[in-house]
Amino acid sequence: MTKIAICGASGYTGAELLRILSSHPEVEITAITSEQSSGKRVTDLYPHLFQYKDLVFEPLDKSKIISKADLFFLALPHGASQEAVNFFYTHGKRVIDLSADYRLRDIQVYQDWYKISHKYPETLKNAVYGLPELYRLYIRTARLIANPGCYPTSAILGLMPSLKAGIIEKDWIVIDSKSGVTGAGRKAELALTFSETNEGFRAYGIATHRHRPEIEQELSLISNYPIKISFTPHLLPLDRGILSSIYCKLKKDVNTSDVIDLYKEAYSNEPFVVVLDEGQLPDLKDVRGSNYCMLSATVDKRINQLIIVSVIDNLVKGASGQAVQNMNIMLNLDETLGLKQVGLFP
Amino acid sequence: MTKIAICGASGYTGAELLRILSSHPEVEITAITSEQSSGKRVTDLYPHLFQYKDLVFEPLDKSKIISKADLFFLALPHGASQEAVNFFYTHGKRVIDLSADYRLRDIQVYQDWYKISHKYPETLKNAVYGLPELYRLYIRTARLIANPGCYPTSAILGLMPSLKAGIIEKDWIVIDSKSGVTGAGRKAELALTFSETNEGFRAYGIATHRHRPEIEQELSLISNYPIKISFTPHLLPLDRGILSSIYCKLKKDVNTSDVIDLYKEAYSNEPFVVVLDEGQLPDLKDVRGSNYCMLSATVDKRINQLIIVSVIDNLVKGASGQAVQNMNIMLNLDETLGLKQVGLFP
Amino acid sequence: MTKIAICGASGYTGAELLRILSSHPEVEITAITSEQSSGKRVTDLYPHLFQYKDLVFEPLDKSKIISKADLFFLALPHGASQEAVNFFYTHGKRVIDLSADYRLRDIQVYQDWYKISHKYPETLKNAVYGLPELYRLYIRTARLIANPGCYPTSAILGLMPSLKAGIIEKDWIVIDSKSGVTGAGRKAELALTFSETNEGFRAYGIATHRHRPEIEQELSLISNYPIKISFTPHLLPLDRGILSSIYCKLKKDVNTSDVIDLYKEAYSNEPFVVVLDEGQLPDLKDVRGSNYCMLSATVDKRINQLIIVSVIDNLVKGASGQAVQNMNIMLNLDETLGLKQVGLFP
Amino acid sequence: MTKIAICGASGYTGAELLRILSSHPEVEITAITSEQSSGKRVTDLYPHLFQYKDLVFEPLDKSKIISKADLFFLALPHGASQEAVNFFYTHGKRVIDLSADYRLRDIQVYQDWYKISHKYPETLKNAVYGLPELYRLYIRTARLIANPGCYPTSAILGLMPSLKAGIIEKDWIVIDSKSGVTGAGRKAELALTFSETNEGFRAYGIATHRHRPEIEQELSLISNYPIKISFTPHLLPLDRGILSSIYCKLKKDVNTSDVIDLYKEAYSNEPFVVVLDEGQLPDLKDVRGSNYCMLSATVDKRINQLIIVSVIDNLVKGASGQAVQNMNIMLNLDETLGLKQVGLFP
Repeated sequence: MTKIAICGASGYTGAELLRILSSHPEVEITAITSEQSSGKRVTDLYPHLFQYKDLVFEPLDKSKIISKADLFFLALPHGASQEAVNFFYTHGKRVIDLSADYRLRDIQVYQDWYKISHKYPETLKNAVYGLPELYRLYIRTARLIANPGCYPTSAILGLMPSLKAGIIEKDWIVIDSKSGVTGAGRKAELALTFSETNEGFRAYGIATHRHRPEIEQELSLISNYPIKISFTPHLLPLDRGILSSIYCKLKKDVNTSDVIDLYKEAYSNEPFVVVLDEGQLPDLKDVRGSNYCMLSATVDKRINQLIIVSVIDNLVKGASGQAVQNMNIMLNLDETLGLKQVGLFP
Repeated sequence: MTKIAICGASGYTGAELLRILSSHPEVEITAITSEQSSGKRVTDLYPHLFQYKDLVFEPLDKSKIISKADLFFLALPHGASQEAVNFFYTHGKRVIDLSADYRLRDIQVYQDWYKISHKYPETLKNAVYGLPELYRLYIRTARLIANPGCYPTSAILGLMPSLKAGIIEKDWIVIDSKSGVTGAGRKAELALTFSETNEGFRAYGIATHRHRPEIEQELSLISNYPIKISFTPHLLPLDRGILSSIYCKLKKDVNTSDVIDLYKEAYSNEPFVVVLDEGQLPDLKDVRGSNYCMLSATVDKRINQLIIVSVIDNLVKGASGQAVQNMNIMLNLDETLGLKQVGLFP
Repeated sequence: MTKIAICGASGYTGAELLRILSSHPEVEITAITSEQSSGKRVTDLYPHLFQYKDLVFEPLDKSKIISKADLFFLALPHGASQEAVNFFYTHGKRVIDLSADYRLRDIQVYQDWYKISHKYPETLKNAVYGLPELYRLYIRTARLIANPGCYPTSAILGLMPSLKAGIIEKDWIVIDSKSGVTGAGRKAELALTFSETNEGFRAYGIATHRHRPEIEQELSLISNYPIKISFTPHLLPLDRGILSSIYCKLKKDVNTSDVIDLYKEAYSNEPFVVVLDEGQLPDLKDVRGSNYCMLSATVDKRINQLIIVSVIDNLVKGASGQAVQNMNIMLNLDETLGLKQVGLFP
Repeated sequence: MTKIAICGASGYTGAELLRILSSHPEVEITAITSEQSSGKRVTDLYPHLFQYKDLVFEPLDKSKIISKADLFFLALPHGASQEAVNFFYTHGKRVIDLSADYRLRDIQVYQDWYKISHKYPETLKNAVYGLPELYRLYIRTARLIANPGCYPTSAILGLMPSLKAGIIEKDWIVIDSKSGVTGAGRKAELALTFSETNEGFRAYGIATHRHRPEIEQELSLISNYPIKISFTPHLLPLDRGILSSIYCKLKKDVNTSDVIDLYKEAYSNEPFVVVLDEGQLPDLKDVRGSNYCMLSATVDKRINQLIIVSVIDNLVKGASGQAVQNMNIMLNLDETLGLKQVGLFP
């Protein structure tokens, strides 16, 4: 049994790690931290996690906690994660960081978008971007994983086969994404209250959302070209899920079935990516609570566009599930351990 | 044009007063107050109220605002309302108070349930409980209206004809009420966030909710007997509406149609109470956004019970709409002015 | 009082016409038709419309109904509307058709997308596309109005000022639209049940939705250029509303504030179009139940794009409210009569 | 591996059996039937169940299917289940029937409430009511299980300890239950569409719901007294979950903590019943997707009442999860196999 600590475990990604790991046969949770909820039991915050009723949040005292675990999940706020990651990493531990602090390779880009300077550029160099479908081999031997953002996961999985195959224009990509409210985290904010959100729908962060440079970085690496995208997130009145509608200009004369074949081939060995048949379109509800990404591809001959639709559960494949998938790869376990639960439909 | 001020206008009942009064032909809003949002425009908080874009919140300075209006709506927190009501009232103004401060006739009961002492017992004596279906004649000449709570409105309208007719046991009443989330007000509270509330449903305040003594007071006055009820509120994952399921023990051998006749007769002149035909049951969705109360009555012969179902929109008939109805009565206007909008279905 | 008949009144757009007209001072509803609900009262289907409790659905017998009214709203299915429109129109009546049958100027395009031939090309020539912001002068003297589709209304209002001013590329427009479930009408379909739809979100009709040629027709007329768009609708888990996110390539070097000024100027005399200030983004919830369209404009300098967000209530400005607006114009009444109700927020 | 057939597998309880059994290590699904969807693949109806993509619905041909499996789950409509159950049972198979056909011990009661005569009274005698918390020992050796209804499961688990301990009046029980929409099954009915249900809430089946005699039967057996209850179901605008608010008259002078102790003791060995601490109230959201029942008990001293709140997921503990729990007991497996998944919160 690998000993696991979760730092910043009181938020939704922390709770989701606890939920997923509750049925994982190869790990044991030995410590959870939270500043605000220090001294409280897990069930004081999350009654549904009653099997953890003896687990108590402690403050994050790095030198105390380091001896308690072999692998550290960090679900701390952006910025706050930098130092903790560096500490556990430089002390030889395995670290999976769910913040954005180690995702961007270029420190300047990080500073431009997050308005924080990065203090650990050497550690950053050793971080692997934890998208198994792209970097599985690197993850296997890594000790530090930068777990991808939720929007980037949906967008990159949707675009990777097309970019690799060179069938779309690199300068013509529009990503219109829609996320459920849990994507905003567990916060007592007026704009996130039920009365302000339910039966509503709105765009936010147009032109300024911080997942954009992360998406651009990975698409650029895939295509060896400095890709710039149009990216607009929206807030859906539902709990879980991200659906990204991705519009691309086709360079080649291909049919819907050609593109679907390409995607099925590209993901044929992937345990968590499902490419739908022609005529099917994915629904957020089909992946709720699961680690799966479902994809559709449709060619619009009239305007020579390819429209990809990509759905994930933002808390699972978009955060904690992917983190556990990365853990399984790092620990050389079956990659799907603890993650076989299918979508909760209806 | 009667000049109107709304004190504590930044919450949902304040915004709802603004929404309803925006189509009222006989009044003019001359001042709105808010401590937290002082200096902001209405549209900074509520973009849907764009016709008020020149209206700015000011702090509640009683001696300054008193000259600006003839009638004052107070949507202040319980406790905070006491003094303001007393000030405007004793200076000769008309006051409609949406807080609970002037609803309970017995100061001791108020203090027991609200944990605040009442400083203005003389003014309290002049307050009329603003349920038009019960106290219309008193409202007509009153200068101070204690606007009823949302749960009490639904419960009292559901029980009044049965109690008056003496067909039910006074010691055997169970009220199971369910309210939409706006009933909790406009607050940045974790428990009210979408992620904690959506797709959930829970009881709260069992045995301790403060609308209980208010319901008991009015039922006792109607029946001239010290009624005690069982009252349990629940939180529905929807925006607006209260549905109360009311269980009563029948004293007489009556049929469903007898009771429906009784209710139709009792409310035959009421513009805002609709008694449904046998076989129909009311749905919250039918009264959304409207000032109507819909009622059904069903006799369960097998156990000799009467089950009343009562629905209202908690922000309209349960708060701001009823306040405007009271205003219309006080000002000797058509009671339905500004309130004819039917439910927004679907 | 103008006498009004509504043909096909049992669906949601019919019920919405009844709701809106219930507070309209200048009209009287004299007949409503429905084949399926013939003989039923309005309140059998729609309890919230209890003020129409004496109004009974009759079958559509054109020669019988024609003498009952001066103006006919037709909310019949596409295809079924052709003949009825022609009948009432050629018999000298005023007609507002909420179907798509008289929207497309080119009969071939109609036949290609709707798979029905058009039998009344002469009548079609006399139809005016009922978007007041574009064709008010023509509507004033028209006797036949083709009331616009919901998606087209949101899209055209969002693009009109930019196309007229020539600031965007005509060959580079992506429209990503999201609609509430009432847009699909009142139908007992499995895919529209709560269990299949709630907490879900999906795209549909990619590349094939029939509102696309309608949008293209009007954008082409505005810009005098054969515009082709990318258009993808999605189904939101909420009752009412359409939000369209519109992506355009800028031809000129303009700022967000320049574009907002352009839009404010363009719509300065429009009673139902609200252009938001810089930094504000519209929310569906703000227009729920109202006839307003809210628009935002944002320039993304990094990629030289303009992103317009447009929101309407699909049943009001997207259907029945716009139909009443057209009626008011045709009857030379105040254009806003019966339509001043603001959004039902929260 | 035990071979499993599911008859009537195309509805929600069938799909839920497939979802739960997909992670069960000791069973194998060898046949699924559906008349309407015969010839279709599971994924044609339920894309989220893609690991069953080679499983095809067949018509229910009893003599053909009987050799394919050892244990049969029947999720057929009430009435239609009678014969199939009898067939598989009399041919020596194990049967778990999710319909109501074998739940009521008294054939006359069955006929009165379901308006169908029962043709297999001898088989009925051998059926065990599959509530493990009440009949585990009988289930262990039974070959025919009548899987309880969803409302009865929530109500009986809420009342059992109080009735057994004799602390409440047997003639004074009011059960006010609220269910999510999936409880109505997978049906293309107008009343179940999103537009008619969302943001709505209504009571239904007052005095006439068919789960009432089932609840009364079991409460009467527990208390050895012919119990009659007041029972009213309501429809909640959410996917999954039943919350029952149960009002009882106390016979003894007990405190909340006494009753909680009683309940904790009563359920101390139950893997799927969680009794909350004083001050906590259960929320439907905490059990979503799980087989757990959460209970709270509150004494209202002022009126000498006990208020129990009971929550379950209607498709899991209220149907398919409980069926799998029964299967595990019958097969002498760990009772929690395949059922350890906790609630999907948030």
